[in-house]
Amino acid sequence: MNIVCSKEELLKGVTIVQKAVPTRTTMSILECILIDATGDEIKLTANDMEIGIETVVNGKIIEGGVVAIEAKFLSDVVRKLPDNDISIITDDNYSTKIICEDINLNYDIVGKSGDDFAKIPFISRNEPIVISQFALKELIKQTIFSTADNDSNKMMKGELFEINDNNLKVVALDGHRLAIRNIELKDNYESKKVVVPAKTLNEISKIIPGFADEMVNIFITDNNIIFEFDNTIVVSRLIDGEYFKLDNMLSTDYKTKIKINKRQLLDSIDRASLMAKEGDKKPIIMDINDININLSITSVMGSMNENISIDKEGIDMRIGFNPKFFMDALKVIDDEEIIMYMVDPKAPCYIRDDNETFIYMILPININSAR
Amino acid sequence: MNIVCSKEELLKGVTIVQKAVPTRTTMSILECILIDATGDEIKLTANDMEIGIETVVNGKIIEGGVVAIEAKFLSDVVRKLPDNDISIITDDNYSTKIICEDINLNYDIVGKSGDDFAKIPFISRNEPIVISQFALKELIKQTIFSTADNDSNKMMKGELFEINDNNLKVVALDGHRLAIRNIELKDNYESKKVVVPAKTLNEISKIIPGFADEMVNIFITDNNIIFEFDNTIVVSRLIDGEYFKLDNMLSTDYKTKIKINKRQLLDSIDRASLMAKEGDKKPIIMDINDININLSITSVMGSMNENISIDKEGIDMRIGFNPKFFMDALKVIDDEEIIMYMVDPKAPCYIRDDNETFIYMILPININSAR
Repeated sequence: MNIVCSKEELLKGVTIVQKAVPTRTTMSILECILIDATGDEIKLTANDMEIGIETVVNGKIIEGGVVAIEAKFLSDVVRKLPDNDISIITDDNYSTKIICEDINLNYDIVGKSGDDFAKIPFISRNEPIVISQFALKELIKQTIFSTADNDSNKMMKGELFEINDNNLKVVALDGHRLAIRNIELKDNYESKKVVVPAKTLNEISKIIPGFADEMVNIFITDNNIIFEFDNTIVVSRLIDGEYFKLDNMLSTDYKTKIKINKRQLLDSIDRASLMAKEGDKKPIIMDINDININLSITSVMGSMNENISIDKEGIDMRIGFNPKFFMDALKVIDDEEIIMYMVDPKAPCYIRDDNETFIYMILPININSAR
Repeated sequence: MNIVCSKEELLKGVTIVQKAVPTRTTMSILECILIDATGDEIKLTANDMEIGIETVVNGKIIEGGVVAIEAKFLSDVVRKLPDNDISIITDDNYSTKIICEDINLNYDIVGKSGDDFAKIPFISRNEPIVISQFALKELIKQTIFSTADNDSNKMMKGELFEINDNNLKVVALDGHRLAIRNIELKDNYESKKVVVPAKTLNEISKIIPGFADEMVNIFITDNNIIFEFDNTIVVSRLIDGEYFKLDNMLSTDYKTKIKINKRQLLDSIDRASLMAKEGDKKPIIMDINDININLSITSVMGSMNENISIDKEGIDMRIGFNPKFFMDALKVIDDEEIIMYMVDPKAPCYIRDDNETFIYMILPININSAR
C-alpha cells in the first residue's frame, strides 16, 4: 500500500474512528485502526464489536492495499506532524513507513495485516430517517444524563427512539428521573421503536460537527442502527427487548404549578449543593408559597437558605429533591423561565414546556425519612 | 465580626492565600483561612508552616473581629456567589453567616476561633531587592523544571538566588541537568546567596499577575525570604546549607558548536518521544555533520528519524540525550535560534546565548551502554 493524505484529512479521520477503539481489550487487533485502500477510496475503520465507525479520507492511492496500525500511536503521530502531506507505505510484511518528505521525517513501525480485523458487516438499508446534525446533537445532550451508567437493567443504559409519523421521541430514564424530548421531522415515517445504547449516542454526539444545515441519515434494521453523515458511517447494535411503558409514569395532573427563572433556580441549587459533601445525599428542600420559593439544605457543615420569587398557581408545597438530578435537567433547558408541576411531596415533579418538546420528571426524596 | 466585601475582592483574596493551604494535614486549623478584621484592614491569611501568605482585601468593617473558615468551603462558596456584596458576620461562638442580601441568600456555618491559627511571624525587614513581576515570573518558569521533585538532596529541591551588585542569578539543578538565568537589576545590592524552596517559587509564580510595570519587593533574612507585591505578602523559609559549587560544572570549551532552529528541534524531539513508551528511557540520538543533524530513536515499537539543517563549527558528533530533558529546556527559551556547544559524547552539552542570560546544561546518555 502507498497512499498520500494531508495531515488535516488524516487527523480528522483518525479522530473520528478512534471513538470506536476500546480502551481495554484482550484482542490487540481491536486496538488498531484499519486503513483500507483496496478500492478507489481510503477508508479508515475501527470496531469494538458494539460500535463500528468507518470514514473516508481524501487522499491519493499510489498503490492499493490494507494495513492495521495501533490507533493511539497513529493518532499521536498524526497530531504531532506538521501541516504537510503524509505518506503511508507498507510492504508485503506490513512493515509500515509514515513519511513526511517536506521535513525529512520517517517513522518505521510494524503494522498488522487486516485479516483478523472485525470488519463492519454490510447491512442492507431501507429508507433513512433524516434529521439535522444540530438537532440530533441537542436531542442527545438533553436526555443522555438520565440514562443509568451501571445498572442491572439493560434498558436504562439506552435511550428509546420512537418514531410516529413526523415525530421523533427520545426517552431516557434511570429509575429516579425521566427525560423526554420530542422533535418534529420534515417527513412522515413508518412507526418504529428501538433502544439505542447510551454509549453509542455519547460517541455520536462527539463525532457529529453539529451544523444546522447538514443532515444525518438514520437507518434502523432489526438489530442495528446506522448513522450516516459527511463521509462517516457509525453502526451500532440495538438493545434487545421491550422499553418501559411510559403511560403510567406521565401525568398532567397537578396541585401546584410554578413559573421560575431557570438561571436563578440553577445557581441557587448549585450553591446549596456545596453544603453536601460527596456521597452525602442531603436533599434540597423547596418551600413553596404564593410569592416565593425558599430553598434550604442542612448538613453537618451547617445550613443554607435562599429565596427566589415565583409565579404560583395552586396549593403551598414543601418538597425535597436530590440537587444533582434537578441541576442536570436545568442545565440542558434553553428556556429562560421554566414551569414546574407538583401533586404532593411524594409524587413526581414535572418540568415541561407547553408543547411538551421536553418533559423532565424527577422523583422527590421523602424529607421526613431523610432527616 | 461583621464585614462587607465585593465578591470580586473576596474571591481574589481567597484564591491568593489558598495557595498556602496544605492539601493534607492532621492539623485542621491549617485547612482554614483566617479572616482578621481586628485592625483597620481586612486581612486574609493561610499558612502551611513552610509558606505563609497574607493579603489585604478591600471592604467595610462594620464590627471588628476574627474568624477562621475552612478554605475549600469558603473558596467554593465565594466562587458560586453572584457579583454582589457579601457580608460575613460571626457571633461570640464563631457561628458564621455568609449573606448575600441582594438574592436573599444565607449560609450558616461553624467557624473557628483564630487562637490556634499559626500566624505569620513579624520579620524585621532590610532594604528590598526590587524586580518586576514579569521578570520574576519568567525567571521561575525558565528554571523551575530543573529542580528535583523528590530527591534525598534537599538542595536540589530549591533554587539558588545569588545577588551580586546589580545581577540576580537563579540556578536549578537535579543531577542530570542545570538551568541558569541571569538578570540585570535596576539597582546595586549587597552580595547575597540563598536557596529558596521550589514549592514556594511555584506558588509565587501562580499568584503574581506578572505585569511588566508592577514590582515585587524581595526581602531576605537569615531564615526567610519575603515577597511583597500588590496587597500581598508571601513568607517562606529558606533551605539551610551550602549550594553546589557551580564553577566545576560550567565550561566554555567546545569541539562542536551548532546553530539550529529551536521550533524545528523541539518538534522533532517531540515526535521522536512517541516511540518511547512511558518509563522506557530510550535516548534520542543526534548525528551531527557539516550540514545537518539527524535525529533518531529506536524502540520496540520501531524507529523514527528526521533531518534538520544546521550551521556548524568544529568536528562531527554522535551523542544521545533523554528527550524530555532537552524538550524542557527548549520549551522555555524564547529565541528563534539556539546555539549548542558539545565536547564529546560523554561530556555535558550546553545551550546558551552570547550574554549568558541563560545557560542550560544537559548530561548526555551513553549511547553504547544504553543499547
